[in-house]
Amino acid sequence: MIFKETRYGVCSPGFRAAGVKRGRYGVSLVVADQVCETAAVFTRNSVKAGSLRYTKAMVRNGVAAVVANSGNANCCVPTGVDDARELAEAAAKALGVNARNVAVASTGIIGRRMDVDAVKSVLSEAACGLAPSPQGSLQAAKAIMTTDTRIKMYSAESKGIRVGGICKGAGMIAPNMATMLCFITTNAALPKGMLQKALGESCDETFNMVSVDGDMSTNDTVLLMSNRTARAGYGTFKPLLSHVMAELAKMIARDGEGASKFIEVEVRGARSVADARAAVLAVSNSPLVKTAFYGENPNWGRIVAAIGARIEIDDTRVDVTYSAQGRAAKLLLAGRPMNPEPARKVLAARAVKVEVDLHLGACSAVGWTCDMTPEYVKINAGYN
Amino acid sequence: MIFKETRYGVCSPGFRAAGVKRGRYGVSLVVADQVCETAAVFTRNSVKAGSLRYTKAMVRNGVAAVVANSGNANCCVPTGVDDARELAEAAAKALGVNARNVAVASTGIIGRRMDVDAVKSVLSEAACGLAPSPQGSLQAAKAIMTTDTRIKMYSAESKGIRVGGICKGAGMIAPNMATMLCFITTNAALPKGMLQKALGESCDETFNMVSVDGDMSTNDTVLLMSNRTARAGYGTFKPLLSHVMAELAKMIARDGEGASKFIEVEVRGARSVADARAAVLAVSNSPLVKTAFYGENPNWGRIVAAIGARIEIDDTRVDVTYSAQGRAAKLLLAGRPMNPEPARKVLAARAVKVEVDLHLGACSAVGWTCDMTPEYVKINAGYN
Repeated sequence: MIFKETRYGVCSPGFRAAGVKRGRYGVSLVVADQVCETAAVFTRNSVKAGSLRYTKAMVRNGVAAVVANSGNANCCVPTGVDDARELAEAAAKALGVNARNVAVASTGIIGRRMDVDAVKSVLSEAACGLAPSPQGSLQAAKAIMTTDTRIKMYSAESKGIRVGGICKGAGMIAPNMATMLCFITTNAALPKGMLQKALGESCDETFNMVSVDGDMSTNDTVLLMSNRTARAGYGTFKPLLSHVMAELAKMIARDGEGASKFIEVEVRGARSVADARAAVLAVSNSPLVKTAFYGENPNWGRIVAAIGARIEIDDTRVDVTYSAQGRAAKLLLAGRPMNPEPARKVLAARAVKVEVDLHLGACSAVGWTCDMTPEYVKINAGYN
Repeated sequence: MIFKETRYGVCSPGFRAAGVKRGRYGVSLVVADQVCETAAVFTRNSVKAGSLRYTKAMVRNGVAAVVANSGNANCCVPTGVDDARELAEAAAKALGVNARNVAVASTGIIGRRMDVDAVKSVLSEAACGLAPSPQGSLQAAKAIMTTDTRIKMYSAESKGIRVGGICKGAGMIAPNMATMLCFITTNAALPKGMLQKALGESCDETFNMVSVDGDMSTNDTVLLMSNRTARAGYGTFKPLLSHVMAELAKMIARDGEGASKFIEVEVRGARSVADARAAVLAVSNSPLVKTAFYGENPNWGRIVAAIGARIEIDDTRVDVTYSAQGRAAKLLLAGRPMNPEPARKVLAARAVKVEVDLHLGACSAVGWTCDMTPEYVKINAGYN
């Protein structure tokens, strides 16, 4: 399927966006011209931010505006839900929408009460900057950044359907902790059930392959809003949505805290997709694998051991290949170690692909991660 | 129960030990005056080292001697089991025991064939140094070190029963990968079934609380050998064994790769012991928690979020306390954040205790870990 990239980010036709950062707090706004059919995926952490609990309850009303703040996670504070409501009401007033249609999302430090007045004042400023433009999307993507170093927005179209989004997230080594927020807009006229199905499946293929499914932060939120202004079929929409989300997911991996390398992990020949995904995540969550990539060290043994710790494999059948920039180095072939020297050149690249064939079945999965560096430790030792 | 510490390490009465390191390889020997009743716990990784597979099959014969090498894991190589057998046969010859009673254990790089001749030559040298003394135990503990920076041996007695051991292991951040070897000797005359039960339960309480149960390296091996020369009751033996293993487990956590701090984690008020243990491991395996300790950063939110990602909790009930050197700082009380400033002083200590009360039930668990430092990354980027 052919997707045409656009420059509009989250500003699909009928949507405006804005963002402002002042001092400790940033506020991003995504506003629709009408109440949207809305699908959502939230964290499965049993500890949930006040903002998330508020939004989870209201999302069935349909969303007309999203207000997202950075600087405070609004989590593990007794006032969490009330503070989220106050923010939603302020946004509703500033944007001329009904408060029951305002979604709230937060990212930042846990366990400290948000200064709602300060956030509201940033919100007022942001509301004045709303624009249906690439620039509006860019400002919104920027204002929700925390330890992110790159702006994350992407949009594409196919057969008149537009899908675009912004996201934030950068804590690759511990995806279970680092908050991921993502707001996606579309004009695709599909019923809510189909939107939810497409979003759920696409999350499993994309964001959950950089993060660990079922083991997420207290604030993770993915919202998909459709104003239903363009006729659409599921067969066109779902691949387009997955494509947009995969591009955003890769941006998160590329921007992993302290990362110096982007790593794509593909596991083939697994007995089931669940096994293949578990194997990809075992590799991409292993600090030993990730530090070896930082050291440009062809230590494929850590890859095989990480997979073997998670699923049943036969190490006498496994192939491991590293590749980059059209150059491939086989490190293990049917369980037999190859000369590791050619792999050192491959590992010197900024983006490396790891392919593992388990030769046990016909199922495969792909995921994305980054290397682990001393900088990662420094960032997370100091973040406060 | 009162345990009296001894200085003999793995050299319980009737056992000798030795160790030598030459170049890439180290060899440790633990030799009994007779074939011992032997209990064992091995890795659950589906990828298993040749040495481990060899030893797993022979351990039912009873063990008279253990030969352990550092420098090569003898894993993911087609010749693994054969090379282990060759080493066992060489040890049997050098030590005058039957080859069917020689256990082999290996630690080091995965996927590279061991130079068996080189190891055999170090083995011959070690065999000449066997001694039933603290010094023999010390040499054995030293020769199996890889990235370990401290010698790990401990022994104690109670009512005429002696239990002593040596171990190696230092990869705290990714305990699922870092090899842990432990050899324990005793004179306690107990049947094999009781030895195995005591060893299994003690592993769950000690080594599995620094490491992740069911998610271990390819080489993890814990052997318990009894020459059955002293009358013993299970009620005396089991607590003594657990005590010795807990001391060894704490030494592993203290020696975590690149660690600057030792951290004890206690979770109370859980609905089940399984939940309490899962919560302890969620905290002690979280890179975000561990980097925060390195930064002496009282970020208790990461602790609550890590637990909530693993088990069902009610964050409005949780207490979190840090303590060190008799000073305690409450950070969270029934879900309400306290002033974090007093905790900064506590966190400056080299050894810190984290106590979490979930207020959901009556079950508890304790575990040990260390902080995560830039040094950890450097060690694992370079290890090759």
